[in-house]
Amino acid sequence: MTNILSSIKSKKPLIHHITNVVTVSDCAQITRNWGALPIMAYAIEEVAEMVSTASALVLNIGTLQKEQVEAMIKAAVKANQIGIPVILDPVGVGATGFRTESAREILHKAKIAVIKGNPGEISILAGEKGVIKGVESVGDYSQIGKTSLQLAKMYHCVVVASGAKDTVTNGSHLYQVSNGHPLLATIVGTGCMLASTIAVFCSVNKDYLDAALDATAAFGLASEIASTETEYPESFRVKFMDAVAGMDDVQLNKGKRIKKLFLLGK
Amino acid sequence: MTNILSSIKSKKPLIHHITNVVTVSDCAQITRNWGALPIMAYAIEEVAEMVSTASALVLNIGTLQKEQVEAMIKAAVKANQIGIPVILDPVGVGATGFRTESAREILHKAKIAVIKGNPGEISILAGEKGVIKGVESVGDYSQIGKTSLQLAKMYHCVVVASGAKDTVTNGSHLYQVSNGHPLLATIVGTGCMLASTIAVFCSVNKDYLDAALDATAAFGLASEIASTETEYPESFRVKFMDAVAGMDDVQLNKGKRIKKLFLLGK
Amino acid sequence: MTNILSSIKSKKPLIHHITNVVTVSDCAQITRNWGALPIMAYAIEEVAEMVSTASALVLNIGTLQKEQVEAMIKAAVKANQIGIPVILDPVGVGATGFRTESAREILHKAKIAVIKGNPGEISILAGEKGVIKGVESVGDYSQIGKTSLQLAKMYHCVVVASGAKDTVTNGSHLYQVSNGHPLLATIVGTGCMLASTIAVFCSVNKDYLDAALDATAAFGLASEIASTETEYPESFRVKFMDAVAGMDDVQLNKGKRIKKLFLLGK
Repeated sequence: MTNILSSIKSKKPLIHHITNVVTVSDCAQITRNWGALPIMAYAIEEVAEMVSTASALVLNIGTLQKEQVEAMIKAAVKANQIGIPVILDPVGVGATGFRTESAREILHKAKIAVIKGNPGEISILAGEKGVIKGVESVGDYSQIGKTSLQLAKMYHCVVVASGAKDTVTNGSHLYQVSNGHPLLATIVGTGCMLASTIAVFCSVNKDYLDAALDATAAFGLASEIASTETEYPESFRVKFMDAVAGMDDVQLNKGKRIKKLFLLGK
Repeated sequence: MTNILSSIKSKKPLIHHITNVVTVSDCAQITRNWGALPIMAYAIEEVAEMVSTASALVLNIGTLQKEQVEAMIKAAVKANQIGIPVILDPVGVGATGFRTESAREILHKAKIAVIKGNPGEISILAGEKGVIKGVESVGDYSQIGKTSLQLAKMYHCVVVASGAKDTVTNGSHLYQVSNGHPLLATIVGTGCMLASTIAVFCSVNKDYLDAALDATAAFGLASEIASTETEYPESFRVKFMDAVAGMDDVQLNKGKRIKKLFLLGK
Repeated sequence: MTNILSSIKSKKPLIHHITNVVTVSDCAQITRNWGALPIMAYAIEEVAEMVSTASALVLNIGTLQKEQVEAMIKAAVKANQIGIPVILDPVGVGATGFRTESAREILHKAKIAVIKGNPGEISILAGEKGVIKGVESVGDYSQIGKTSLQLAKMYHCVVVASGAKDTVTNGSHLYQVSNGHPLLATIVGTGCMLASTIAVFCSVNKDYLDAALDATAAFGLASEIASTETEYPESFRVKFMDAVAGMDDVQLNKGKRIKKLFLLGK
């Protein structure tokens, strides 16, 4: 039984984002809807100072520019020093060399608490085959559990591979979260908003595996609630955001569907 | 009879945008709503690589910075090499010398498949008089058909001049699309979203005149459908996006209103 | 009795914004909803030319980059030359030295007509104690009236301190605007949208104190109207934007609640 949602609402943690220009507004709003406070600050002159007042840091490379990599690393190093979690969303990694190299540079220069990606992105970071079409995962990833475990071990972090069913692991234990509705895939920015959600949950629960599981389940649950009211994407987006804001721990505890997986021959 | 919407939904073409920060989220979502995949990538380090996996490229100068012009040209030249259409939305051209010169530089260094603008922007690019207030067309453009033909001939491209009625031409033939509802003019970003829509349609139909006609009609038709449900702009935006996502070829074929025009004394 | 809304709708003033990437779309849309025309233009090459065609300028430092400070000052100096009002929204001032110094630099190099901030931001600019968590005001600001007067005198401008009740002053007279609904605090970007609203109102009424009072009241009134239809943030955002678009002078004159305050021992 979790009480994480009431914990977020009472602590109002500050979530620092360095993120893309496409979904930045959605990320800010969903952070607010969970009960946390978003701050988007990118300038190299201020990122370290800003992150020192935050409870979590989100790095999202969706519309990365070269100067931003430096700001991201500076912010992440500071986050490491003060002991707050850094969530990396390697958007479109594998689509271009620039994205792949930037994500690897961030992973090598800072300690990441949670990597959240689609199966293609997770596979590429793990050194496996993956195909990314723009920012979308293409192809078959039946081995995503194994691949996620591998990536989690490489960087000693939690890995969330989002999909119809989400895979979550800390390198030792592997879970599947089956909350979520297909309408989520019809709106832009759900991946980014999931990363923000994970950051919010990790900011109040130092067990990042546990926090990532709750975050992923709560996110999927909100989509299920929203799906009962519409079948069209833009109306769904409105209802989804409302469902996030309206969710409480009773609803989350009752609705979350998290299952431990055991890999044969691991 | 077109089957373009089912073609888009089955091919899921990748539409690369280099666009402004105001409406980027709307452009991504409408691209998704038609059934295509949006990718927004701006860094000079990656634009050529990213565009090489795309099926169309949108260049929108709405919040242009000097460095972006270089990235746009690099992406457009690559798009030309691989034979995918480039759609130019010269937002606010004529409002400042910087915008006008940047648009002309792009037009001279790359082959554009479709220019989409309001009557003021189209007139200015054609070397005629035009008045732009910010990004809005001001004044009387009764000769917009003739002006569009002229611009289309100058750059051997398709020209779409959007307005209460849209003018579409390839330099030889001239059409008027009369789909559309006045509520469209109450929401920010419709021009940008129309450019994304044209890019989506051109990505699956190499006859760009035909694709631009269908795109313009479908866009207007969605606004007509949405207008039956509300008279307020923000609710209209939601319903408009839903109507885009819900439209099929039967609806489009039945609802589109495209008329061939004949200019006297041409 | 004001007729400011019909004045805006008939004049369609152009409102030039140099603003952040998080709420830029909301600022553009609310500007449009009041009946004005938004233009977002940031490039140093074009800001002076663009502002010379505008009726007001908004400077918002929400996601400030160093180069933007220069563009903001260039635009503001031009705005001063042509006599149009400049509205400063010092988002997150006090959260980092970079923001505080940038805001002060702007205030020293250009004449600002209206500073709009939350109580923490206003206090910090006035040289008083203030605590900013990200971009949110934290703590007790019982002396905000006095502090606002002080800041207004320092820069010979109008100051709007937004909150559950808003404080508005020109340094001589002090007012409280009690329009507004708590749901406003649940959506991201309301502060930024209020600054855009003040700019729109000041663009057609040279009495900036009067314009800021009407703007603040109208903004709050729209939230009251919207709150009758939903209790959830995203649905509220839609209804709020609709209420802005639908408001007329009769509604505003009837609904605005503005009270003159008298500070003891001033």
